[in-house]
Amino acid sequence: MAAKSKWFVLCQFLFCVFLCCESLYQGFGHYKRHQIRQNDNTSYDYKTAYFEQKVDHYGFANDDTYKQRYLIADQFWDKNGGPIFFYTGNEGDITWFCNNTGFMWELAPKLKALLVFAEHRYYGTSLPYGPDAVKDPKKLQYLTSEQALADFAILIQELKANEPGAQSSKVIAFGGSYGGMLAAWLRIKYPNVVDGSLAASAPIWSFIGQIPCEAQLQVVTNSFKRESQTCIKNIRKSWGIINTMGATDSGRARLSTSFDLCALLNTSADTDALKSWLVDIMFNLAMVDYPYPASFLEPLPGWPIKAVCKPLSTEVMDGVPLIQALSSAVKVYYNYTGQAKCLNVNQNAVGSLGDQLWGYQACTEMVMPSCSNGVTDMFEPTTYNFSLVSDACFKQFKIRPRKSWVITEYLGKNLKTASNIIFSNGLLDPWSSGGVLKSMSSSLPVIIIPNGAHHVDLRSSNPGDTPDITKARQTEEYIIQRWVKGDNS
Amino acid sequence: MAAKSKWFVLCQFLFCVFLCCESLYQGFGHYKRHQIRQNDNTSYDYKTAYFEQKVDHYGFANDDTYKQRYLIADQFWDKNGGPIFFYTGNEGDITWFCNNTGFMWELAPKLKALLVFAEHRYYGTSLPYGPDAVKDPKKLQYLTSEQALADFAILIQELKANEPGAQSSKVIAFGGSYGGMLAAWLRIKYPNVVDGSLAASAPIWSFIGQIPCEAQLQVVTNSFKRESQTCIKNIRKSWGIINTMGATDSGRARLSTSFDLCALLNTSADTDALKSWLVDIMFNLAMVDYPYPASFLEPLPGWPIKAVCKPLSTEVMDGVPLIQALSSAVKVYYNYTGQAKCLNVNQNAVGSLGDQLWGYQACTEMVMPSCSNGVTDMFEPTTYNFSLVSDACFKQFKIRPRKSWVITEYLGKNLKTASNIIFSNGLLDPWSSGGVLKSMSSSLPVIIIPNGAHHVDLRSSNPGDTPDITKARQTEEYIIQRWVKGDNS
Repeated sequence: MAAKSKWFVLCQFLFCVFLCCESLYQGFGHYKRHQIRQNDNTSYDYKTAYFEQKVDHYGFANDDTYKQRYLIADQFWDKNGGPIFFYTGNEGDITWFCNNTGFMWELAPKLKALLVFAEHRYYGTSLPYGPDAVKDPKKLQYLTSEQALADFAILIQELKANEPGAQSSKVIAFGGSYGGMLAAWLRIKYPNVVDGSLAASAPIWSFIGQIPCEAQLQVVTNSFKRESQTCIKNIRKSWGIINTMGATDSGRARLSTSFDLCALLNTSADTDALKSWLVDIMFNLAMVDYPYPASFLEPLPGWPIKAVCKPLSTEVMDGVPLIQALSSAVKVYYNYTGQAKCLNVNQNAVGSLGDQLWGYQACTEMVMPSCSNGVTDMFEPTTYNFSLVSDACFKQFKIRPRKSWVITEYLGKNLKTASNIIFSNGLLDPWSSGGVLKSMSSSLPVIIIPNGAHHVDLRSSNPGDTPDITKARQTEEYIIQRWVKGDNS
Repeated sequence: MAAKSKWFVLCQFLFCVFLCCESLYQGFGHYKRHQIRQNDNTSYDYKTAYFEQKVDHYGFANDDTYKQRYLIADQFWDKNGGPIFFYTGNEGDITWFCNNTGFMWELAPKLKALLVFAEHRYYGTSLPYGPDAVKDPKKLQYLTSEQALADFAILIQELKANEPGAQSSKVIAFGGSYGGMLAAWLRIKYPNVVDGSLAASAPIWSFIGQIPCEAQLQVVTNSFKRESQTCIKNIRKSWGIINTMGATDSGRARLSTSFDLCALLNTSADTDALKSWLVDIMFNLAMVDYPYPASFLEPLPGWPIKAVCKPLSTEVMDGVPLIQALSSAVKVYYNYTGQAKCLNVNQNAVGSLGDQLWGYQACTEMVMPSCSNGVTDMFEPTTYNFSLVSDACFKQFKIRPRKSWVITEYLGKNLKTASNIIFSNGLLDPWSSGGVLKSMSSSLPVIIIPNGAHHVDLRSSNPGDTPDITKARQTEEYIIQRWVKGDNS
């Protein structure tokens, strides 16, 4: 039971751990000078603006408003009909998404586009009821995807109405991950506002009943398997050893030492926490398995899974030697720079504001289950129990998730009436398991990136990009260009 | 100013006056026996059922539920794949819509359909917070078209999941007037749930900025003009005479006597009320100008405008004789059966629960302006003043309307991505002015009924039907049959 409850916490936050931790990287004083120097010496110039939004678009009793932040860059824009590229902000600070969506910055000069990056309500500085809203279910109740989409639709219409030259501009939405889901849904629900969307790594089919709950960790396993069969054999074997060692004081002490943990594992619950932390790491590695060095969750080498698997790939091991090898592997992830003195198994459960707010979304609409069977994946068998999730949500937020609302609201798998959405997915990315991988019509193009991790196509081009990554961006550019020309809308 | 304020009240309620007053006709004890004998000796058998709906589909803080009523008839249904015909309930008791949508009852046996008539939240017996909700803005805040559409979508999905044989059934939505708007919007927003919609007399483009505010009363004028040019000349002339007479005590007394009013006109405000009441009558007549005797707002002969215009068509009159003739005309409308001893100019402003609730909807989302110019129409010139409307709404409900939200939410005139919606309009009907009268694509067929009043095509076929009315139903049947077969969805 404890393990299951851990699973819940894990799965609830995995999506956000990635995105919210990423947002740590935006805090370099960019906000003041609005100019970001990238690693490759390009720089992003934008202005910060605010738009007064109604807190509740779906009712009239609450007349409160909040200031939605958006970033705008018009230096490439042809004011005589040039398109608007609109990033549908995810669960985090919009400056981070602005600065890490290099593809939009590369495409804007080519298509003479106006760039707009809109922050998602309740994140960054777009806070309807300030940072304390998280403590009050009444104040949090307007944190839904529908309200966020309405914000985006209204903001776009206001921009088009008030920005000279924008009246007849085509609008293309861009988003990755949850932002990709929003980009797709914005086109689905507001085709009057958005002419086309690039939904990168958008797991719109990860909800209950849409895919087997094992699917995500199966992709993680495959991403490790392609580096080394021996690596996944060792990882699969390690859980039993951790369980055996974790059952005794001396074993837990040994585990603590092997993993250089900051705090001694005292109880079997601590051992469960260690396992959850390890699963986290493997999940995250599959998300950020980029072909070149990058600093996302942690500073990592190119193809980090290859590096992580190295100590686990020489032979199938057992006992303490396997644990030692696993520990070396883990350190590639958490201590690549050699700065950390010890490792903290609670590192992913820090519970920043962003984490908590995504936790709320995962407890309301974004119910995306995960589990494992230990046979077709390299993890301990775990089940998904909706009731447990629901109880935990109630305990934390005084609300219960709705299983199928999102599926009803956003068409589920019945996308035959949808159009002008590119669904792109990297096959290394666990979230690709809930992505649209097969085109349903000519106006819903699907782009598969076999060597791609989580929305790699939205990142700036990089000399280390594999040909399939480069090809994906080229295809996206071609399609978007056609939409802008009005060929297919 | 007083006249403008009257106009507001008038326009706010005109839509509902028709539909809510109609609902008076359902109170014949039908509810208990569930079998309605129609004038033509057909009888409608259905069961009444209830479905527990969340009060708030767009937030998680309020976990209240209410029982949504729906009527279901499965005697014609082929449980092996037969379609579901789903009426999207308007602003009134659903039993009335069930019993007055004969077209669905006639079509169901032909297409072996399951009939479902779903009541709109806050009307009939589907009351989230009981009849007193109207007094409390907090309790009324869930009365929106979005919440109603979510109710319908969820109910359909539940029926399909739980009704044996319904899993793969095609679903066709039907609706007239506001119900027609809902039928269209249900297909637009939930194409995963509804395969096609018949939106009869649905003025989806009657919102601010979509059509000139004069448009409705211009149609009324045209509907009178086709009976007699002299009639509209007399009506146009009468306002000045009423104003002159209404300026003095003796004139008001004369007016009161001429119109057989129950209460003496004491003030100029009373004179304004008389004029509003007359405009109401003319508007309503254009809505119910059916070719055969019918009992809607009032028991009326076939082609009631012809009968009403008769006393006004012999010659262009003036002074008291014109007022006498107008009074005779009005009595055709309000006293066709000769039962009334006197006429009550406040008859339309009774403010039943349904009226008040539609008033709320007209004060929030359904902002459909009306005005007149006195040149291309037969009415006194009046303007539409949004600020006055907004202030009146605030006074009555403590809320203010949102001008453009509905246009953003339901695509406005940008319907190029919509499909499988039949827009039918009778050209006698003032609401046709805000209807879709020109097809935008092959999957959005438009049916124009030159001799048709308000959603006449949804009524049972009648020997008095003109050929264009009969043709409209035939075309609708043909298209719906194709949708059911999956030819065009």
